Formats: sequence, C-alpha cells, structure tokens
Amino acid sequence: MDSKRKEVLVLEDILGSNKKIASSIRQKLLEHQILAVNLLSSPGSGKTSLLEKIGQKLQGKYRVGVVEGDVETERDAERIRKIGLPAWQITTHGACHLEAKMLARIFDQIPADLDFLFIENVGNLVCPASFDLGESLRFVLLSVPEGDDKPKKYPEAFITSQVFVLTKCDLLPYLPFDRERVVKEALEINPKLKVFETSAVTGEGIEELCAFLESELEKRRVKNA
Amino acid sequence: MDSKRKEVLVLEDILGSNKKIASSIRQKLLEHQILAVNLLSSPGSGKTSLLEKIGQKLQGKYRVGVVEGDVETERDAERIRKIGLPAWQITTHGACHLEAKMLARIFDQIPADLDFLFIENVGNLVCPASFDLGESLRFVLLSVPEGDDKPKKYPEAFITSQVFVLTKCDLLPYLPFDRERVVKEALEINPKLKVFETSAVTGEGIEELCAFLESELEKRRVKNA
Repeated sequence: MDSKRKEVLVLEDILGSNKKIASSIRQKLLEHQILAVNLLSSPGSGKTSLLEKIGQKLQGKYRVGVVEGDVETERDAERIRKIGLPAWQITTHGACHLEAKMLARIFDQIPADLDFLFIENVGNLVCPASFDLGESLRFVLLSVPEGDDKPKKYPEAFITSQVFVLTKCDLLPYLPFDRERVVKEALEINPKLKVFETSAVTGEGIEELCAFLESELEKRRVKNA
Repeated sequence: MDSKRKEVLVLEDILGSNKKIASSIRQKLLEHQILAVNLLSSPGSGKTSLLEKIGQKLQGKYRVGVVEGDVETERDAERIRKIGLPAWQITTHGACHLEAKMLARIFDQIPADLDFLFIENVGNLVCPASFDLGESLRFVLLSVPEGDDKPKKYPEAFITSQVFVLTKCDLLPYLPFDRERVVKEALEINPKLKVFETSAVTGEGIEELCAFLESELEKRRVKNA
C-alpha cells in the first residue's frame, strides 16, 4: 500500500472512532440535559474572555462548567476558576485539536447536574473543525483584528458551526474592518449561522448571546420533557 | 497493531518523507544562493501585511518572490502581486500546514535568480511548526491583539524559529499587552530567538528587519563564495 493511501486510511480510522465516542458523549449529555458548546477559533481570538463574560452572567441562575483545551499550560483554566467556575484542563502536549476520546477520559469528573458545559478548543481555526466532541452547539469565533477576509479562507469552521461570534468589536474604530462584509461572507458559506457581534471589554452582545443560550437550553428541555 | 501505534507509524512516515524532500529543497536553494524564509503564525497575525512592507523595501535592490500557503482562496497571492512581486499560490484544500512535497511540486516555477523567497505558511500556530520546508530561516509572528500569554501556550513554533516578529505594535495603546513579558517568555523557550517589534501601519521595525535579512543573505553568500 502506498503511503498516501495508508495516510488516508489512518485518518478515516481516527475520524470514525472519534465519531463513535462523540455519539456516546452526546447521548450522556442528553440524558443529563446538559447543553454543551464547543468553541473554535484562532489563538488569541478571545475565547476565554468571552467565556469569562458569559460565565459570570449565567452562573447566578445556572450551573456552568468549562473544559479548557490547550497545547500547553493551564493558564485558561486558572482564569476561569478565578471567576468561581469549575474548569477541567485538557493539555494536548502538541496535538492541534481536541478529540472526543480526550473529553471521554475526563467525563467522569464533570457533574451530571450542570446546565451548560463550555468546551474551549485548542486555538486553531483549521483542525478542530473536523472533530465532533459530542457538543450540542458549535461556536466559531473571529476577532476584529484578524481581518474581514477570514471566513472564505478558513471555511470548514464556519460550515460546521451553528453560531458565529465576532469578538473584540471595541477595536473597530482602530482597524480597517468591514462588519457587513465579514457577516455576508460567513452567511454565504453557511446561511444558517446565527451571528453575534460582541466585545468582552464593553459588554456589547453578551446579553444577547446569553439570552440565546438560555432559550436553546429551555427549548431542548421542553422537547425532551 | 492497535490504532494508536498505526497512527504514530504513519506520522513518522510522513515526517520522515517530508524531511528528505525538505533536504533536497534546501540543497537547491543553497545552489541558487536563495535565502528562503518560512513564516508561521495564527490566521490574521499580519503575515501578508509584513510581506507587503518587506517586499516593497527589498524589491528595488533584490529579486524577491513569495509562496502563499492557504487552506482556500488566492487572496494573499493577489495582494502580493499587486505590489509587483511574483507570488505562487499553494492551496491546501483543508490541510492545516504546508509540507515540503507541496513546495517541491511548484519549485520549477520559481526563478533560480531570486535573492529572497518568502513562504507564507497556512495560518496556524501549531501544525506548521512540525514541517521543515527546506527554508534557510523560520520566522514566528505574533500580533499584539493575540495577547502576551501565547509563547508558552504554543511553544513549538517558538522553539523551531530563529526570529520572533511581534506585529501590530500600533495597537499597543488600545490593548493590555506587556511587551516585556512576551519577549521574556519567548526567550525563555528559545534564548537564541532574534526579536523584532513591528507595525505594518506605522512602519516600525521594518527597516531593522530588512537590514537583518540583507545581512543574513550577504553572510551566507560570503560563506559559500
């Protein structure tokens, strides 16, 4: 067998086995009525800052937990714990994305009575898009400083997400960035995307995003009642 | 053989075969006395903007060419061609990094009389670090909006580079970013890193970076004369 063919077969193996584990995680989350959100973006797009804001807003009313995926360090989990939320760290030591098996390994530590479980993926706009973690919703984040030309350059993350969160909108005055262009381009790739324009500094869009999350949780609970 | 073992073997295969092709590219670049720079960073860190600035500055005196690596679209190559430089596009259609074999496929199109060949890798701070392209120098870029905590979170790109370019320094007044911290952290990972603080907007650091590139080119030519 040539090496290209071998490579394809191993990748299919990995994705196939990932899918099975993700399905079993999805089933457990459904049983526990936990809404799980998988957050995808480049490094430094503001995933942790967004989670700090959302977490603070939701934690009075709901039980919220966070899984932190990182290549190295436990810095993001420490930030989340500082605002009083439980955080579980997955350090991949080199791997460029989370896989369902990594989540499965720590799943027993996650309390069954959570309402929301946020999973912050490794900072990478490419690879995490191919790996289902059993999440209920997938968010793709893009920050204003990254530029308005990114959705078509990195389409997979936008195709596989249900929500597009534009972050760091407080920096719009200082950068040549066309909000309309980026939203139009994202919707051309995936017309079903729900779009939120946010800033963790000014709080723009955080309330709307939390209202959306609450409604998604309630909708699913009614459906499964 | 279990699937983990199979996975490791295929990865070793890929990296081994990549190394061989990279060595042959390195040999050709040496024969033609071309200085090749592989640029690594997250999406939107300003690789293309930096290349526009450097290219404009060097092109009066030197022959400069650019290879553009992207998951999708030819947008960056078009930007480079607009400033009058030749650009060759490698679209990976999903793959998260450039490999030496992709460069080898287009190598015949690259004129042998170039002085500088810049290779803009796929926007990804993780995977491209594992793949030698036969380059003479590797640059890792980090933009101010990405945050000063990134080197230790994404160490491999900093370990394998010779130069660390901090970009978008014009945004420092608007962001909580500790220049000293990021430089200190990068140097803790790799004490040999040469550091440049730049802005494609104000032009800060561009002259120093070009002077460094010129001196590297001359140094190598004297050595190989």
